[in-house]
Amino acid sequence: MTGSLRIVGLGPGDEALVTPQVSKALDDATDILGYTPYVARIAPRAGLTLHASDNREELARAKAGLEIAARGGRAVIVSSGDPGVFAMASAVFEAVEGEPQWHDLDIRVLPGITAMLAAAARIGAPLGHDFCAINLSDNLKPWALIEKRLKLAAEADFAIALYNPRSASRPDGFARALDVLKEAGTGDRLIVFARAVSSPQERIEVYRVGDAPAERVDMRTLVIVCNSATRRAGRWLYAPRRVS
Amino acid sequence: MTGSLRIVGLGPGDEALVTPQVSKALDDATDILGYTPYVARIAPRAGLTLHASDNREELARAKAGLEIAARGGRAVIVSSGDPGVFAMASAVFEAVEGEPQWHDLDIRVLPGITAMLAAAARIGAPLGHDFCAINLSDNLKPWALIEKRLKLAAEADFAIALYNPRSASRPDGFARALDVLKEAGTGDRLIVFARAVSSPQERIEVYRVGDAPAERVDMRTLVIVCNSATRRAGRWLYAPRRVS
Repeated sequence: MTGSLRIVGLGPGDEALVTPQVSKALDDATDILGYTPYVARIAPRAGLTLHASDNREELARAKAGLEIAARGGRAVIVSSGDPGVFAMASAVFEAVEGEPQWHDLDIRVLPGITAMLAAAARIGAPLGHDFCAINLSDNLKPWALIEKRLKLAAEADFAIALYNPRSASRPDGFARALDVLKEAGTGDRLIVFARAVSSPQERIEVYRVGDAPAERVDMRTLVIVCNSATRRAGRWLYAPRRVS
Repeated sequence: MTGSLRIVGLGPGDEALVTPQVSKALDDATDILGYTPYVARIAPRAGLTLHASDNREELARAKAGLEIAARGGRAVIVSSGDPGVFAMASAVFEAVEGEPQWHDLDIRVLPGITAMLAAAARIGAPLGHDFCAINLSDNLKPWALIEKRLKLAAEADFAIALYNPRSASRPDGFARALDVLKEAGTGDRLIVFARAVSSPQERIEVYRVGDAPAERVDMRTLVIVCNSATRRAGRWLYAPRRVS
């Protein structure tokens, strides 16, 4: 029996946003591994083992999936959104790197709808021009690097998607990020708080950076700082295609 | 009859990457509008009118879709990838902005798998850390702005996804972009040329920025300049989660 590992993206929450490629991998799996709330989206069935773990267990989860594949199982590691964007794919290849016996395993990454695309779609087209994506968690990188990137992104006039903006263990980072952006001259830019997009709890709010209420943001929120050219069209926002 | 407009993403090419939400919108449509090669992906059927047009006709196509919806049709405008990333959503809201009678139409943007996510998945996880996306076409923005953004993106050590890197009408822009990146000190960074990802013509090549052959790139190629920390793991590339 030849094992395999698929690292798949479940999209932002709505099952209608899961690609058929990912659905098929889930249907064929012997083992599904992931952070507890993502594994909770998978229906149990005979022949399938679900392995739920905490969100600080990424490397251990990656190794567990690789070991299942090496033993002949069909392992699937699930992420929300896209597995390659601040999610499990990097952890898997980090685990692969030092273990040559895993280099020839049948591994594939199956993309998904990442949060910024789903959020942008709900408000219009704020990512219709050049943009960047920054993970605001400083668990795995220094805060100074986050500040540097925010300043440069503001100077470049990118739209800026902010992932993991605020958590119980990092209550102040998002307010600091807003301060950095204001100091960089973006106070007049539109900013979108998109919470739980595509779920029944969805809530979309639009402010200006200069008066955005940081405490309205949590880990289920994706933030988009619009570029300076972004315009309103009725209830929509969009980044114009043409910039002079 | 209440009309609607859906602006949908077909993903990079493989039908297994089209979301069920988009498939349903296509099935329900009375009219599908888009750039000729994208409309060619739609199977004709009774009751469906296909409207194919040139890729310079974005605003006219947007208006045509809005007019169909205003008359009670179920119009779908198709883009490849995601409609909000260098695609049709911005053009639609540009058309909406000046026409208040269109502000209350039933409009929705349905996201798709954009090219950089599909390309990243095929080579590993080069977008696993902070990144940006830049459209290299200077049809609608000055080249000086592209150069400025490339320099700032290099300084920020973002992974950089380059859309529309090179076309018959812009044969030299990509080589100039590589020169800008080299001058910005990224010559040693890994660079991925991902052509026609998920299609039978798929071709993935990896170079260093300093010796990347610009002429290997065309409009079907998505380029990813990796960040400086990116590592190889067997045949894969990945951006480590941890950066010091």
